Amino acid sequence: MKIIEGGILSPLGYKGAAVAAGLKKSKLDLALLLSQEVATVAGAFTTNCVKAAPVIYSQRIVEKGDGVRALLVNSGNANAATGSQGWSDLETSVAYATNELKIKREEILLCSTGVIGVPLPMEKVLPGIKACVNTLGAPANDLAQAILTTDTFTKEVAVEIVIEGQSVRIGGMAKGSGMIHPNMATMLAFVTTDGEVERDYLEKLLLESVAESYNMISVDGDTSTNDTLLAFANGASGVKIVEGSSSAQLFKEAFNYVNTTLAKMIVQDGEGATKLLTVEIKGAATVEDGRTLARSIVGSNLVKTALFGSDANWGRTLCAMGYSGVSFDPEGVSLAYSSPAGSIEVFQGGLPLPFDEKLAKEILNEKEITLWVELSEGSCTARGWGCDLSYDYVKINGDYRS
Amino acid sequence: MKIIEGGILSPLGYKGAAVAAGLKKSKLDLALLLSQEVATVAGAFTTNCVKAAPVIYSQRIVEKGDGVRALLVNSGNANAATGSQGWSDLETSVAYATNELKIKREEILLCSTGVIGVPLPMEKVLPGIKACVNTLGAPANDLAQAILTTDTFTKEVAVEIVIEGQSVRIGGMAKGSGMIHPNMATMLAFVTTDGEVERDYLEKLLLESVAESYNMISVDGDTSTNDTLLAFANGASGVKIVEGSSSAQLFKEAFNYVNTTLAKMIVQDGEGATKLLTVEIKGAATVEDGRTLARSIVGSNLVKTALFGSDANWGRTLCAMGYSGVSFDPEGVSLAYSSPAGSIEVFQGGLPLPFDEKLAKEILNEKEITLWVELSEGSCTARGWGCDLSYDYVKINGDYRS
Repeated sequence: MKIIEGGILSPLGYKGAAVAAGLKKSKLDLALLLSQEVATVAGAFTTNCVKAAPVIYSQRIVEKGDGVRALLVNSGNANAATGSQGWSDLETSVAYATNELKIKREEILLCSTGVIGVPLPMEKVLPGIKACVNTLGAPANDLAQAILTTDTFTKEVAVEIVIEGQSVRIGGMAKGSGMIHPNMATMLAFVTTDGEVERDYLEKLLLESVAESYNMISVDGDTSTNDTLLAFANGASGVKIVEGSSSAQLFKEAFNYVNTTLAKMIVQDGEGATKLLTVEIKGAATVEDGRTLARSIVGSNLVKTALFGSDANWGRTLCAMGYSGVSFDPEGVSLAYSSPAGSIEVFQGGLPLPFDEKLAKEILNEKEITLWVELSEGSCTARGWGCDLSYDYVKINGDYRS
Repeated sequence: MKIIEGGILSPLGYKGAAVAAGLKKSKLDLALLLSQEVATVAGAFTTNCVKAAPVIYSQRIVEKGDGVRALLVNSGNANAATGSQGWSDLETSVAYATNELKIKREEILLCSTGVIGVPLPMEKVLPGIKACVNTLGAPANDLAQAILTTDTFTKEVAVEIVIEGQSVRIGGMAKGSGMIHPNMATMLAFVTTDGEVERDYLEKLLLESVAESYNMISVDGDTSTNDTLLAFANGASGVKIVEGSSSAQLFKEAFNYVNTTLAKMIVQDGEGATKLLTVEIKGAATVEDGRTLARSIVGSNLVKTALFGSDANWGRTLCAMGYSGVSFDPEGVSLAYSSPAGSIEVFQGGLPLPFDEKLAKEILNEKEITLWVELSEGSCTARGWGCDLSYDYVKINGDYRS
């Protein structure tokens, strides 16, 4: 597997466009992706029972199982809790875009992200769609820019694998950065490949990958109304990925790498975040237990504020493990921190270990820190990612609408 | 029911003491409660699977069902994650205190709160116990002061009811103010009464009351290792409270009032909190659904930061309801805010309502705000309490240990 330049447009047979339609103040806010051929598509959607209109719409199309040609994403407005107006606006966008693109009505997926409960300004959306269609061929990072909300950097990644002498590419882009919490699909993330992948197999790969990537991160414990992950496979490379083959294993690893990389970028860019915390769980009774423990730790406000303050307050980690719902013997737990500045063990066999507070501070002052958790319940492992809770999280969210 | 002065020492037949034993820097940190007669006792304890030694110890005694005479509480140190040393320290305290008080070994309950993972300084604890025994008779607010950690004010309340011409009193005290989240019993809260209440009935009253008081508040979503609620009934009033009688109903209401008042005080004094949010749920299919919705709203970091910023960002409320796990029709939801500054409706029948942003700001700038949530699922109601998430929460928890 080779990491290559670009993102969602790196695989063959995809074109993109991004424009500033006026949904955000003079920033790119509308992105269009077009596949030259019909692509198979799989998706995962928010588990929030309040779903935005575009989520319900896209979910229906993905579940129907037919291929699609295009994806239209806007930021600046979630088109959520907008009632029948929201549905009518969505239908208008679909009709207008598919007509301009000369594709079938069911061949486009829609995603929206931004403020909840405000109708879409259609007088800006429709000219924006037209401008996108007229400028297809934009660089990938323009699309990655156009889907952002409070994010501070674009999130994209692309890889190439070689299967029987032929190249297959997978690319992705995503946006965070608040209302992010495991167990609800994801935020917005889109993955393309020019491999030829059957719809059911693509869905299987996607659901497996979600469980260890987007579902293992938390910024703030809030599950958005608009979370969506979509994966497109258009077969433009001419290489077919057949389930069970050795090339499928290679493809799966590359696909997981793209998703995990995007997930980590999302949490690294969590609202107000200054640090990335990786939690490595060993010795859990089951993988699900390990994942639950990791999610509980990265989801704890007290763990997150201690991380912000570079305080090796491991008691909060143990406490978050204790209320996760997973049963374990506290006397079989070991805890350690590491980062480029060094490593320290802080708890072992139910007892605190004396440690060098100065070194602990240095370790926790780094930008990327790993927390090592070992239990004595079994041999399963899991990994989760979180960020710190800073003054800026409060600042950003204290007045998001203005 | 009449609200009276005082707290835990207001009912007849209880004495107290509080000293500065040196567990905290020159502040009261050790409290002793003694009942002149053996009192029945009921309790609720943290659901965290990492339990502090005193929690396990007190839980065993309460479950055994025999009466007790005394309660010893220290702040400044949780005696949690302290291994066999923690148990041995606890046994030493029990032996020493019961000997000094001339009561039986099983007649004392212990609670600890403070930092996790640091052994108790027994050279300070034992002289502290002796000083408490020697000074029994302190004012109630000294005890309420001695159990505090990051709290900014003492939390106590007392009420009097008259049953067949005779007075019965109920008093309580509690401490917060971080690691507080529903569904795990409580933080530390203690309630005394001079009513005569059988142990099983006291337990029933307590569990019912917990469900609508301490379990309906959230400060930060973190469930502590030390949460404990204890209720003592020593019968010193000479009035017996018999289950099913009309006086029992009166007693129950007074008991719930004490617990609900303490719970509200805890969340009002949440770490860094500047505002108290009351969430009133109507039209839920079941009481449990209503409680789950209320807890999800008050537990949302995004709802809490919007409250801090006085931002009527009701979309976050709807979002938090949506991921609560309760299924409901978003189109049957209405949302409104009120406070002493006025009231506004913001969402109705699945649609945003236009509202006066200036008035909304004034309403949310108050110290106590109510959020009214109406669903169209049934006729059940529930009530929950939360606080805002401020810069000071981050500050307080960014370096709690130092």
